Amino acid sequence: MNDFAKKLFQNSKSVVDAIPVVVSSRIRLARNLADAKFVKYACKSDLRMIADMCIDALAKCPILSGSNVVAMGDLLEYERTSLVERHMCSQEFTANINEARLLFTDDQLISIMINEEDHLRMQIFRPNLNFREMFDSINEIDDHLSENLDIAFDERYGFLTSCPTNVGTGMRASVMLHLPALSILKQMNNLVLAVQKLGFVARGLFGEGSDSQGNFFQISNQQTLGLSEVDILSRLSQIIKSIIDYELNFREIVKKERIVWLYDNIGRALGILRGCYSMASVDAINCISLMMLASDLEYLPNDLRHELNQIMMKMQGSHLQVLANRPLNAAERDIKRAEILREFFATVPNLKFM
Amino acid sequence: MNDFAKKLFQNSKSVVDAIPVVVSSRIRLARNLADAKFVKYACKSDLRMIADMCIDALAKCPILSGSNVVAMGDLLEYERTSLVERHMCSQEFTANINEARLLFTDDQLISIMINEEDHLRMQIFRPNLNFREMFDSINEIDDHLSENLDIAFDERYGFLTSCPTNVGTGMRASVMLHLPALSILKQMNNLVLAVQKLGFVARGLFGEGSDSQGNFFQISNQQTLGLSEVDILSRLSQIIKSIIDYELNFREIVKKERIVWLYDNIGRALGILRGCYSMASVDAINCISLMMLASDLEYLPNDLRHELNQIMMKMQGSHLQVLANRPLNAAERDIKRAEILREFFATVPNLKFM
Repeated sequence: MNDFAKKLFQNSKSVVDAIPVVVSSRIRLARNLADAKFVKYACKSDLRMIADMCIDALAKCPILSGSNVVAMGDLLEYERTSLVERHMCSQEFTANINEARLLFTDDQLISIMINEEDHLRMQIFRPNLNFREMFDSINEIDDHLSENLDIAFDERYGFLTSCPTNVGTGMRASVMLHLPALSILKQMNNLVLAVQKLGFVARGLFGEGSDSQGNFFQISNQQTLGLSEVDILSRLSQIIKSIIDYELNFREIVKKERIVWLYDNIGRALGILRGCYSMASVDAINCISLMMLASDLEYLPNDLRHELNQIMMKMQGSHLQVLANRPLNAAERDIKRAEILREFFATVPNLKFM
Repeated sequence: MNDFAKKLFQNSKSVVDAIPVVVSSRIRLARNLADAKFVKYACKSDLRMIADMCIDALAKCPILSGSNVVAMGDLLEYERTSLVERHMCSQEFTANINEARLLFTDDQLISIMINEEDHLRMQIFRPNLNFREMFDSINEIDDHLSENLDIAFDERYGFLTSCPTNVGTGMRASVMLHLPALSILKQMNNLVLAVQKLGFVARGLFGEGSDSQGNFFQISNQQTLGLSEVDILSRLSQIIKSIIDYELNFREIVKKERIVWLYDNIGRALGILRGCYSMASVDAINCISLMMLASDLEYLPNDLRHELNQIMMKMQGSHLQVLANRPLNAAERDIKRAEILREFFATVPNLKFM
């Protein structure tokens, strides 16, 4: 395993406060330097100057001390895309790598894209739901930046961003939810529409346009203008809490009305995970999703949940290549994925249905 | 378990001389009494007289001593159809139960339908391929019958039967083959055509018009007129031996060229068999077929083969009802089937791929 792989796979064991339904939450702030051109208008030397200024300023922020800085251009393609799979940077950030730098903490809970669409895209990540604490932390970085750099801000509009849809707070908050019961009972369309009506957006596992693989849905705010950060986070938080309630209620309904389906699908999925020698990504996600549900319902040990999150991360295409330390074609990835799954699930205890 | 179930499920452990590819062989002779009307023209009292005469004569045959006689009308519907699943009688025999009797030995290797389409349909069954021994045994019964009853026979045509397609030898010989490698490598159509050209017929698991579930194919003779029994059996035997060679060669090719597919499909099938809580018949047959292949290839203990035959028998719809001792609807059957499979395959050792 090379240095990049070691860095990537060191587990963030610091936070294991997993709760059912919520996979992770993120808050992202978009910021730009007042005196520099937006990235899309900047030349290479501009971008280098911006990168240097941002990194200098960020390095002095106590919360970021000892962070890693990676120049995207120094990484192999699959190393870059593994960071997207980890939600540590955007797809776009891996395509446009001119002076693009990624700063991230060892626990990978904070990552900052420099020279993406905006000069700075700062993201804080948690494997649970605690917007208040997250917002305080990212605010600390934001305040530090404002003290050390001249950040583009307009009294009337708020923070200025490259794309008008981010003007205002420059904030996007999102929560990844695991909603198997709503899926089983075919309630997802209703949920997506309800979320939209409230001014928020529901998407699949990898953002806009992606399918709802494994019953994972991401709920995020649309609006950045005209509302305060605290308002947005509090409304999103309320919505998420109602969705959690719905999902947990629907799980009780599934246990009452679809118990054979539930046992059968969970039992088969574990059998397949233990027996496979080639596994496509989407099948793996769907099987692991059922194992997460099994863990939530205590058919599997509840403390397995954190490991399931880790294994789901690892079996993504670019992660597999990082693990193998070489490019793999689709067939090779399927074999490697199956190998990891088979070995992991061999160590998982048998299901205990009540 | 009631008496019928006990009789049905007593294992015929006497013959465990299983060979790969061949599941079972059967020889069937159609005979009619010379002085009685064919079944379709006979009235109830004719049929009763025919039944009594046949049973009296058969009871005295040494090879059949201590055999069981069942009046089909005394059985429940699912009990009757369980006998079809066991290939001990025909589907038609369970529909037209007027004075229909089934005589069968304890080891279930000989079964004789009385008042099916012909007065007598005598069948000998083996879980391997040994036509010579089988023909000797069934001939012994046939000779005994001829000595004790006046059997309809014409010097020119041979044995006379209700349907002209059986006239002559009145013999049908068939072999059930398990041909997974030919299926995997998409050679089945070629095989079916080749068999047809040679004047024989290839069919799926349950005779004419049935699908080739689980890669099981039945090869049987078409012709009954103009060839001696020995000629037919010797030609069929030669064909079967070539098909076995083909299948075994193709298994080597599968192991060379499709090894990941093979491991993956066998591994998943065992996982599903161990994890399922509801299983449709066709899925069960396909999964067990892969376990048979695994056993042949020594990924599972080779001596498991006999038990796999037994479990495949048991998980058929009517067998499940006999086991439960009550009628089961489709959903109940799927649950019961999964229960049997899950419990059995929990005791099977893990796969050992080389």
